[in-house]
Amino acid sequence: MLKDYEPEKTLDKSEMAEEIKALREKLLGQQQLIRDAKIPILVLVEGWAAAGKGSLIKELISEIDPRFYHVASPSVIPEDEMRYPFLYPYATAIPENGKITFLDSGWMEACVRKLLKREITHTEYNHRVRQVNEFERQLRDGGYLIIKLFVDIGRKEQSERLSALLENVDTEWRVTREDLWQHREYKRFRDAYNDFMEATRQAAPWHILDGEKRKSAVYTALKCLVGGIEDALRDGRYTGEPFDEAFPLLEMPHLSDVDLSPEMDDETYKKQLKKLQGRLAELHNVIYRKKIPVILCYEGWDAAGKGGNIRRVAYPLDPRGCDVMPIASPEPHELARQYLWRFWTRLPRSGHICIFDRTWYGRVMVERLEGFCSEKDWQRAYNEINEFERQLTDWGAVVIKFWIHIDQDTQLARFTERQNTPEKQWKITDEDWRNREKWPQYEVAVDEMLQKTSTENAPWYIIESNDKKYARIKTLKIIVHALEKACEEKTGKVLGD
Amino acid sequence: MLKDYEPEKTLDKSEMAEEIKALREKLLGQQQLIRDAKIPILVLVEGWAAAGKGSLIKELISEIDPRFYHVASPSVIPEDEMRYPFLYPYATAIPENGKITFLDSGWMEACVRKLLKREITHTEYNHRVRQVNEFERQLRDGGYLIIKLFVDIGRKEQSERLSALLENVDTEWRVTREDLWQHREYKRFRDAYNDFMEATRQAAPWHILDGEKRKSAVYTALKCLVGGIEDALRDGRYTGEPFDEAFPLLEMPHLSDVDLSPEMDDETYKKQLKKLQGRLAELHNVIYRKKIPVILCYEGWDAAGKGGNIRRVAYPLDPRGCDVMPIASPEPHELARQYLWRFWTRLPRSGHICIFDRTWYGRVMVERLEGFCSEKDWQRAYNEINEFERQLTDWGAVVIKFWIHIDQDTQLARFTERQNTPEKQWKITDEDWRNREKWPQYEVAVDEMLQKTSTENAPWYIIESNDKKYARIKTLKIIVHALEKACEEKTGKVLGD
Repeated sequence: MLKDYEPEKTLDKSEMAEEIKALREKLLGQQQLIRDAKIPILVLVEGWAAAGKGSLIKELISEIDPRFYHVASPSVIPEDEMRYPFLYPYATAIPENGKITFLDSGWMEACVRKLLKREITHTEYNHRVRQVNEFERQLRDGGYLIIKLFVDIGRKEQSERLSALLENVDTEWRVTREDLWQHREYKRFRDAYNDFMEATRQAAPWHILDGEKRKSAVYTALKCLVGGIEDALRDGRYTGEPFDEAFPLLEMPHLSDVDLSPEMDDETYKKQLKKLQGRLAELHNVIYRKKIPVILCYEGWDAAGKGGNIRRVAYPLDPRGCDVMPIASPEPHELARQYLWRFWTRLPRSGHICIFDRTWYGRVMVERLEGFCSEKDWQRAYNEINEFERQLTDWGAVVIKFWIHIDQDTQLARFTERQNTPEKQWKITDEDWRNREKWPQYEVAVDEMLQKTSTENAPWYIIESNDKKYARIKTLKIIVHALEKACEEKTGKVLGD
Repeated sequence: MLKDYEPEKTLDKSEMAEEIKALREKLLGQQQLIRDAKIPILVLVEGWAAAGKGSLIKELISEIDPRFYHVASPSVIPEDEMRYPFLYPYATAIPENGKITFLDSGWMEACVRKLLKREITHTEYNHRVRQVNEFERQLRDGGYLIIKLFVDIGRKEQSERLSALLENVDTEWRVTREDLWQHREYKRFRDAYNDFMEATRQAAPWHILDGEKRKSAVYTALKCLVGGIEDALRDGRYTGEPFDEAFPLLEMPHLSDVDLSPEMDDETYKKQLKKLQGRLAELHNVIYRKKIPVILCYEGWDAAGKGGNIRRVAYPLDPRGCDVMPIASPEPHELARQYLWRFWTRLPRSGHICIFDRTWYGRVMVERLEGFCSEKDWQRAYNEINEFERQLTDWGAVVIKFWIHIDQDTQLARFTERQNTPEKQWKITDEDWRNREKWPQYEVAVDEMLQKTSTENAPWYIIESNDKKYARIKTLKIIVHALEKACEEKTGKVLGD
């Protein structure tokens, strides 16, 4: 497939220069339209070492106003130093609406190089290819324009370029040991690049550029970029269709069928609390040592007791290895990106525990009910979230999700108590009362969420919280059990224990 | 000075427990008031290895709502891996208004440990102590409450705790080689900690806690925190007084005295441009290899030609090592922190070039004129900015500042042209016309800025830009000259070349 370059008109040197100039002017005119149409653009530039990826990007951005683009160069991090999921460097680098991010090497290089270096197995590689397809599709469906370029050069050309760089004291640092290794393994890389491109054409096509003809590569890249933008501006921001994927789902009861009567007396509570917190503290040491990432998700009715529950879980944990992440309404710079971005950027490093007080499930609850996203958006979200969570558990994370459940009477009693207790008044707002009125609609949404997103790898637990003590102990038990299991299972293979 | 603990009442065990409980409740009540009063709080927790800093923080946060605090554990990075200024990990971790950040070790540990490890010289150490004092004062003057705690334990106690940790397979990872080294060098550390605390009492006092008595340490820490907050709530958010510091300033002409007639013909321009851009590309390689950070600052009148000028400078640079940072109005999460925070977070890594399209000088221009900050705030800013830039050049950075200058007639001509050219209309807004009306006020502010902040280490250059070609060549020449000088001077000592 390599050498199967983008078709080009036969142009002589001056015609080419003319065309490039015209394309640049077009791009210059497009930048404002992109902003108005709020289209975010991700340009992935992959290719051989010394193929000229950097120079190509330089030519692409040369006329664009710096307010409209950013160049990111995520480096390929060796597997045992990578404390984040595979997609993390890319998922956190996506542009906001109306802007362009150029990625100088990205997920392709990371997949291929790690496979050939045997840092990951073939199975892991295949998982990552699947993740890449999910990631690209999610971005596309979220309105992103993705342009993928591969800059190709032959083995002989690469040899000459590497030698030239090595001969100059000021440029020799540009050639890494990995580059030289790639050159020796040219053929294997060629095959692996081809395989990867073949496997990742679903959400966005690959454009292969002839890096040996610099001008022609610039010309083709500009054509892809300007053409892609033209199409996107004509068609408007894309919104993906909902789709079903066969995720193995756990059976969940409907909220109305949950028995909320369980209680716990004070003495049992205190005894159990102490025991479980002690065990959790011990486990945190193992988690840290074995570099297991842990993600605890809390959702629930207002006044269900999320905060107090979370505090009991966080208390025994070493604060240096544990973060509680309260999730409020998105800030403008967060709203301007795909909705999972603000969670990607908040993920814990491996070995750390992150407790999310509210989560990405806002998409299928408040955003659905308040119309903050379109119907297609939240309908698509069930699968997107399942994929996201599978990406987390593929990474090795323990992901547990709690729905802290109470009934309407209990909520009313707690609201009233908050209202009447001066120190607690800040906890109750008009919005809480408004949300309360929407209980039935929320219940439908929560039920649908629980049905569609309780997977074996990232299960939901409904926590009966009319009695907060019972709820806390139940939560702690579930966490302790899951962490014990993870610590036992953990062979250390993937995370480099 | 160590062992000179915070005075305490003599309390028996149950009295202590009562007092701790009462303080926690007070803290719980304060969290909402802190938010309303928009007071940001930085709690620095320093101390010996195994002194129990983590557990102390755990006790401090145990009752606080996670929405109000964050725990950060910046690690001490070896000098040759540190690609940012010394204060970077702390300056980027400051809390936003109404929130608390707990720093588990901070600038004290970094200074002391690096001195004792001989990673920095005594001179560099002294510079850093000065930077710490500047940093703490700037935060205090910007309304921050800073609480500094040191958890002390004796040598024998440290020995026992380290041994206990080492005996358990799940906790031995907590003891690093550095901890053991500290234990061997206990006396030198003790003296160095004392010296550091003695030298950094100006903006915020130190509180020394007896880490051998855990409850008492928690009690004292809570008292410091709750007491500090009480004072801050009573007195209201503090605003520092302007002050003069003897910065050696370069003499600068007044804008009205600048001769704007210089021009350059097209042919000379093209020839020079090519030559200078070529040289810049070469220098970028050296800059990268020698790990010199470069910060280019652009300010200037609207339509003065900043954008085109920046593009000519950025074009020859490798986009992987160069970032153009357009600075727009601050976003809400930026506004909620000290004004330099959004620039700290945008600093380049050493070896990289960052071009700021507008800068921190907004403080003494638009924020001054539009009343976005108080008079004291912008008056203090001249010195604060001089200090900030000295921190950058102490780090080894090349800092150059350009005022891109035109006269009012030229601006009018360019505004009109933008207005009449469809592709350029987005570049001209009503705000530009409004700002134009304030030319005289701006000129006063710019003159004052140029007089007060052109230092030898970070000089201003006025770039005559009625003729854009002339302006671009002059800018390029200044940059090339400064980089050549930096590359020659660079011995590699500080940045680990």
